[in-house]
Amino acid sequence: MKAGRYIVIEGQDGTGKTTQADLLATYLHSRGIDTIHIKEPGGSPVAEAIRGVILDATLPRTPMTNTLLFTANRHELWHAVIRPALKRGTWVICTRNYWSTLAFQGYGEGMDLSIISAITATFTDKQYMSPDFSVVLAFDDIAARQKRIASRGKLAKPDTFESKTTDFQTRVQGGYRQIAKEFEIPLLDASRSIEAIHSDIVGRLEKSQLLASS
Amino acid sequence: MKAGRYIVIEGQDGTGKTTQADLLATYLHSRGIDTIHIKEPGGSPVAEAIRGVILDATLPRTPMTNTLLFTANRHELWHAVIRPALKRGTWVICTRNYWSTLAFQGYGEGMDLSIISAITATFTDKQYMSPDFSVVLAFDDIAARQKRIASRGKLAKPDTFESKTTDFQTRVQGGYRQIAKEFEIPLLDASRSIEAIHSDIVGRLEKSQLLASS
Repeated sequence: MKAGRYIVIEGQDGTGKTTQADLLATYLHSRGIDTIHIKEPGGSPVAEAIRGVILDATLPRTPMTNTLLFTANRHELWHAVIRPALKRGTWVICTRNYWSTLAFQGYGEGMDLSIISAITATFTDKQYMSPDFSVVLAFDDIAARQKRIASRGKLAKPDTFESKTTDFQTRVQGGYRQIAKEFEIPLLDASRSIEAIHSDIVGRLEKSQLLASS
Repeated sequence: MKAGRYIVIEGQDGTGKTTQADLLATYLHSRGIDTIHIKEPGGSPVAEAIRGVILDATLPRTPMTNTLLFTANRHELWHAVIRPALKRGTWVICTRNYWSTLAFQGYGEGMDLSIISAITATFTDKQYMSPDFSVVLAFDDIAARQKRIASRGKLAKPDTFESKTTDFQTRVQGGYRQIAKEFEIPLLDASRSIEAIHSDIVGRLEKSQLLASS
């Protein structure tokens, strides 16, 4: 049996990652490909418990602690959920991977990027760090992004990172641009319509030959 | 002002670490030394939340996840609580340090010891890894240790590590002996009376010249 493919959709909150992941999963199903959509952080019982600690904005902690907690979450998700699914032949679309920690803890909170990469390499593996296909959704209008997040009722009780300052959001934004460049990930304009972004992603996926070879 | 000293009391559950730490704190107070007793894991709000995840035996996870969670806890405790106290001139007696992770996740759960040491070095510092004074309490009669733990009412709902097999406990026991040898930490016979162990610890502390130089 052929192994599944690991697809990552990255980007800040309010860029439409979940919407695009769901649309892409539907598209892949229509092509007869068994697909699941996973969200980082979370995904297994202990990963959900760790996610609860991470997102609790009432608990002060250092960027290093955030990095360790995200890495624990990621390690569990990879070993308990994603890798077994890929081995069964299921495709996995994951919103976020360790690039989020580079963007948030590295560019956003000032933590050493090389420590983040080293610890991820130790506790995940090469395939995790180099997905078969990935895109970064970028939507630089912070006010408009906040409006999108608010519309899903999340700003009533902002989590750890949503409650950060505009300065922080701007640093994360710049971080994502740097990451897209460095890791050669397509940076997609997420200010377009949902349909336009979906077509863009499908077009790129078809071009990538991943579908042809599956 | 003189910096405080960092003292570690290590050993398996039921070896009397907490009792000895409390007695030693009382002794140091009687010598006019400001002292606090800290327990790993735990010690700050986020560290307590992480501790809750670690000790929840209903959440399956890998030894690598345990290592990351303990390291996050330790990093917070060191940076938010212990190091600031030492800087103020307070002595800190801590039950457990990263040697517990070497013993439990390394010797007990089979995780690579060098990864545990490397990640601890990255997220704490040299002083954390080389306390000013330390002892390991060893009490190899597993049944008697379990009885002690039971007497404090903890076995009603055993936590993640207390619920492990006797084989596991034996591996951890052997691990502590190895660790004591490698890091040149006195290994104390914890089957003796509380008073005898306390006198032994105080005697060694006095010999160490730490008290003379404070």
